[in-house]
Amino acid sequence: MNFTLNVLGTASALPTTERYPSAQVLDVRGRLFMIDCGEGAQMQMRKAGISFLKIEHICISHIHGDHIFGIFGLLSTMAMLGRTAPLNIYAPGSFKPVLQFFLTNFGEGFLYEVNMTELKMTAPELIYENRRTELLAFPLNHRVEAFGFIIREKMPQHNVYKEAIAKYNLSIAEIGTLKRGEDVVRKEGDETVVIPNSEAAYIPYAPRSYAYCSDTAPFPELADWVRGVTLLYHEATFPAEMSEMAAKTFHSTTLQAAQTALEAGVGRLLVGHYSSRFTSVDFFLDELRSIFPATDLARDMDVVEI
Amino acid sequence: MNFTLNVLGTASALPTTERYPSAQVLDVRGRLFMIDCGEGAQMQMRKAGISFLKIEHICISHIHGDHIFGIFGLLSTMAMLGRTAPLNIYAPGSFKPVLQFFLTNFGEGFLYEVNMTELKMTAPELIYENRRTELLAFPLNHRVEAFGFIIREKMPQHNVYKEAIAKYNLSIAEIGTLKRGEDVVRKEGDETVVIPNSEAAYIPYAPRSYAYCSDTAPFPELADWVRGVTLLYHEATFPAEMSEMAAKTFHSTTLQAAQTALEAGVGRLLVGHYSSRFTSVDFFLDELRSIFPATDLARDMDVVEI
Repeated sequence: MNFTLNVLGTASALPTTERYPSAQVLDVRGRLFMIDCGEGAQMQMRKAGISFLKIEHICISHIHGDHIFGIFGLLSTMAMLGRTAPLNIYAPGSFKPVLQFFLTNFGEGFLYEVNMTELKMTAPELIYENRRTELLAFPLNHRVEAFGFIIREKMPQHNVYKEAIAKYNLSIAEIGTLKRGEDVVRKEGDETVVIPNSEAAYIPYAPRSYAYCSDTAPFPELADWVRGVTLLYHEATFPAEMSEMAAKTFHSTTLQAAQTALEAGVGRLLVGHYSSRFTSVDFFLDELRSIFPATDLARDMDVVEI
Repeated sequence: MNFTLNVLGTASALPTTERYPSAQVLDVRGRLFMIDCGEGAQMQMRKAGISFLKIEHICISHIHGDHIFGIFGLLSTMAMLGRTAPLNIYAPGSFKPVLQFFLTNFGEGFLYEVNMTELKMTAPELIYENRRTELLAFPLNHRVEAFGFIIREKMPQHNVYKEAIAKYNLSIAEIGTLKRGEDVVRKEGDETVVIPNSEAAYIPYAPRSYAYCSDTAPFPELADWVRGVTLLYHEATFPAEMSEMAAKTFHSTTLQAAQTALEAGVGRLLVGHYSSRFTSVDFFLDELRSIFPATDLARDMDVVEI
C-alpha cells in the first residue's frame, strides 16, 4: 500500500549541479499525483523509473518558471507515448493562458484531454477524491497567487473484533454501524445500551497524509490547515539569518518552516527549495531540528515512504 | 584558440536516462554560440561548467519541443544572474510568438534585450559576423520549417616569410598585399613580375568550421552547402533499416548522414539525435563508418575540439 514521495527537484529559482527545480510525484497505491513540474522533471522521472502514463493529476503551486517549465516537455512526451487517459491539472488561474498557449502551439496530435481546474479558494477545499484518497488545496502567501496541497488517505472502514460479534451477538446492521466508525446504540426495554466503537472495532491502519507548502512566507492560518499531517514538505529557501531576504521575497527560513511544523503537530518535516547560494545546506538541519527534531533535508531523487 | 563543441543533449523527441534533448554550445575563442536549447540545457551547462552569461547567440533550428523547451529556463536564469548584455536569437518565424509569449508572461524584470532574427533564406546566408567568425544559416528539409547553421573562422591574415621580405625587398604596401592573401604584382620596366602569395606567405592556421544539421531528411543541395567543413554534426535518428520511418518523419538514417558527409568532403562527422527506441546506438557506428570512416557518435556532455 504505497504512499511514497519521489522528490525530483529541490532547487529554488536557480538550479545547481546537484539540484533540479521543484517537482515531486506522490505514489498513492500506484496512482500518481505530481506536484509542480520544474524543468527537467521528465528526465528525473525517467531516472527514478516513474511511469509518465500513470500520472493522473498535476498540481501546480504557482506560475514561477522553476515550478512549471518542465510541463511542456512532460505533456509532449505523454502525447508521444500515446496517452489517451485524461490528465487533470489543478493550478491558479494565471496558469490557464500558459497551458492554452502550449496546447495551441504544441498540442497538435494529442490524443488525451487536459482538464484544468482553476484554484481560487481562500481556505482548504477538497478538489478531487476517489474511493480511498482526497486531494485538497489551500492558499499560500507568496509574491504571486500560490497554493499548497494536501493528499491524504480517507479514514478506512473499521474492522470489527470477532470476539465482540460473539459477545454482543451483533446483527449485520450493527456490524455495518461499527464499520462506519459509529457506536452501536440499542434499546433494551426502557434502557439505552451503547456499545462504544472503540470497544468493538479498530482502525486497520492509520490514514496517511502529505502536505506540500512551497513557495510561501509564514502566515497564521497555515499550521491549522496542515494540522497533524504525517509528512509536511515545507520550503526552507533561506537559513535563519536571512529572514529579511525571506520576508522580502515571500519565502521561509529554516526556523519558520520548523515553527509551522511544530505548531501544526505534524509527524515529520521535510524541507527543500534551497537557495542556490548554498552549495551545501547541511547547516540548515541544525537550525531546523533546534525547533522541530523530526526534520530531514530533501535531496533530489529522494524516495520517502510516508 | 578554442573552437570547442559542447554536446549537451543527443536525444530525439523522447529523452532517455542517458540522453537529454538537443542542445549544444560552440566555444569560439571564449565567445559562445548556442545551437538549439532542449529541456534541461541549463542544467547540462552547469554540469559542463559553461557560463550562462557568455552566451551571445542562440540558434534555433526549428520549433519542435525537443529543440526549444529549455530556452524558457535558460533565459530566466540569465535574467536572475543579472544579465544586461543583449542576447541574439536566430530562429524560424514560427518561434517569434513563442518568444513573445514567454517574454510577456515571464520576462518581467529582465535587464537585457532579446533580439530575434527571423530566418527565411532558401540557401546559405551570412546572419552574423565579428572580426574573426562568421555564422551562416541555411534551410533544412524537415516536417516544419527548419534551419541548419555553419559557424566558421574567417580566413586569417597570411604571415609573410622573413626570408621573402629580404629576398624580394618587399615594400610595406606589398607586405600588406601578401597578408591579405593576394599575389604581389610588380611592373619592372615593360615586364610584369608576379610574386605568388604561396611563395612569400603562408596561412598561420587553417580556419576551422562547424556545421549543424538537425533535424533533416537528406536533400540534394545539402552536401554543397556544408562542403569541406572541419566537423559536420548531422542527425542520425534511425539506423539504415528504418529508412521508411526516416522518410516519413523527415529524418535521416545513419547511411544518409554518412553519405552527405562523404559527398561534402567534410573533415569529420559527428552524429546524434538518436531515436529513443535504441538504448545503445553502438551499432549505428558500423553503418556510418562503412560509408564515412571519420565518424563518431555524439554522447551527452561530450567535449569535442574542432
